[in-house]
Amino acid sequence: MSENRIYNFNAGPATLPLPVLEEIQASLLNYKSSGMSITEVSHRSPWFDDVINDAIARTKRLLGLDDKFHVLFLQGGASTQFAMIPMNFLADGKSADYVNTGTWSTKAIKEAQIQNKSCNVVASSEDRNFAYIPKDIAFNKDAVFAHITSNNTIKGTQWAQFPDTAGVPIISDMSSDIMSRPLDADKFGMIYAGAQKNIGPAGVCMVIVRDDMLKLIPDNLPSMLNYNTFVAKNSMYNTPPCFSIYCIQLVMKWLEETVGGLAAMEKLNQEKAGLLYDFMDATDFYNATADKDSRSLMNVTFRLPSEDLEQQFIKDATAKGMGGLKGHRSVGGCRASIYNAMPIEGIQTLVAFMKEFQKNNG
Amino acid sequence: MSENRIYNFNAGPATLPLPVLEEIQASLLNYKSSGMSITEVSHRSPWFDDVINDAIARTKRLLGLDDKFHVLFLQGGASTQFAMIPMNFLADGKSADYVNTGTWSTKAIKEAQIQNKSCNVVASSEDRNFAYIPKDIAFNKDAVFAHITSNNTIKGTQWAQFPDTAGVPIISDMSSDIMSRPLDADKFGMIYAGAQKNIGPAGVCMVIVRDDMLKLIPDNLPSMLNYNTFVAKNSMYNTPPCFSIYCIQLVMKWLEETVGGLAAMEKLNQEKAGLLYDFMDATDFYNATADKDSRSLMNVTFRLPSEDLEQQFIKDATAKGMGGLKGHRSVGGCRASIYNAMPIEGIQTLVAFMKEFQKNNG
Repeated sequence: MSENRIYNFNAGPATLPLPVLEEIQASLLNYKSSGMSITEVSHRSPWFDDVINDAIARTKRLLGLDDKFHVLFLQGGASTQFAMIPMNFLADGKSADYVNTGTWSTKAIKEAQIQNKSCNVVASSEDRNFAYIPKDIAFNKDAVFAHITSNNTIKGTQWAQFPDTAGVPIISDMSSDIMSRPLDADKFGMIYAGAQKNIGPAGVCMVIVRDDMLKLIPDNLPSMLNYNTFVAKNSMYNTPPCFSIYCIQLVMKWLEETVGGLAAMEKLNQEKAGLLYDFMDATDFYNATADKDSRSLMNVTFRLPSEDLEQQFIKDATAKGMGGLKGHRSVGGCRASIYNAMPIEGIQTLVAFMKEFQKNNG
Repeated sequence: MSENRIYNFNAGPATLPLPVLEEIQASLLNYKSSGMSITEVSHRSPWFDDVINDAIARTKRLLGLDDKFHVLFLQGGASTQFAMIPMNFLADGKSADYVNTGTWSTKAIKEAQIQNKSCNVVASSEDRNFAYIPKDIAFNKDAVFAHITSNNTIKGTQWAQFPDTAGVPIISDMSSDIMSRPLDADKFGMIYAGAQKNIGPAGVCMVIVRDDMLKLIPDNLPSMLNYNTFVAKNSMYNTPPCFSIYCIQLVMKWLEETVGGLAAMEKLNQEKAGLLYDFMDATDFYNATADKDSRSLMNVTFRLPSEDLEQQFIKDATAKGMGGLKGHRSVGGCRASIYNAMPIEGIQTLVAFMKEFQKNNG
């Protein structure tokens, strides 16, 4: 790779498309002949208007969103959304369903409970350390929404299909797999995603909210914690995180113009993850930790025969220019995060290394 | 200036020191031989630990903060702080004092009121369109804090000295003048500042909070709205806005190593603002709008004899490479925002243009 760049398998912040970084770099001192850096341009300028509106238009085209959806840019990450969702949508007497598939779902539930909001955990995979996505869930018909985490970075699981909620709007944390595949948007009342895995750098959270959800919001919320504030002002009630939104715009452009859209992206992601899982399934040395039908195409979690070997594996990989393969500190083991921007050459290089490592240590 | 850069007089996002932008650009594809961009490096890595810890250490040295102060990095701008301050510090039965010196103070008060928090507006300059900073204010001894806006970007006023509050901790929004002068930190219970004027790009808000204030915080707040969460995790409970924090680190380095600290910065800011105000005071053509004893060293607001002339002035200045001179849309007129990063050559160029414009149109 150019400039001695590594293959970056970090879970997030994660690798970005190289053409995106190169474009940022080239224009960093003078954005589009403005005489200013994109970090210096007023958010009330035509330059930034073009950035945010293009980011929104591309997002809508890529996901096939019609005008009942609003694309917003908030701050505070998905963790702030965990709090804002019940604050905005769960008035007294209303309740919501939550599915618990790991660390992030658990945190989302906790932030509802801390506000004394009524939430029903209708399914959980905690019984087997979150190694699978629950099936045949009985959602409550009167739930205001059904909350899921579409991809679980730490446990390496992903919803292959979204659940049938009998019409209850799904709210999904898609921080780690947004834009990795096409969506049937009409199932969703809201989608949110911290940008730093699949769509940009840290510092911005994309929120896609359906118009009818906005009617549920009470009047007495602080302005910055009320989705209506962001809808009314095109995410510019106050100064937005301009640089991160600009990066999202460039990633959406890359997805549309270089990758060719989300169907092409999904095919490539299947191919990339397939290389890794197929290789591991043919060995006894590497063991993927998630159930086969629940495996993530984004975060491939696996174990080696011993923790000593895992440490050696991570160390040797790092020395060979493959970074970030250590599993999350809460579960150990190994993890290859292979988001949209990870090229297939990165996976091929990793698999070749895994073969070599097994030969030398197996 | 290099690369056809303009003199950028925007109020925020605002001009950044050129050496900072050049350093960001040079390392954008490969940060410190990590093989990754700073936008791609994990926040749980030694690279980012060094960034955030250096940003904190430099902030403490520059402002002379001892260990009872915590330097935090939050998201959502000062506008989110307007809500978090009463949420964290005003339990039932407690009240706070607010001084209203313009748009931002008014918003801070509104966000306390919307939460039904008890706040007393102990002084206001609304009677004369916020053209001055109130004096001889009677603060309430039992107030939990006294809230002020140290510099008012829209009205062009600034507290020359901070008020005597008889021991009540001051909480100040310093978004537009933090790091522009040395501080007597011991007067403050908390200082907060959206970065995009004096210390970095948009997307991060610096919060400096005194240890004793943290004891006031109730247990039942959402995690991301509780200052203790950020104190306990060195601002990394979840993924922080890494790029913006990195920029702050570089601006703090520039302040320490190139400018020579805040006393030197203040001297330069006085000189810069002095050039503009002294020139205007000697003409009838340009009229500074703020009272003399309340003038801001950061945002110089002024009027010309007519709105037509103001439009022509802004247009001609833009054509000559001086951008962002239009006053805030709520007040009209002209405004030159001359934060730390505006070089004195920018002011000299502006004053020369103002003379020329007056000669041709006066």
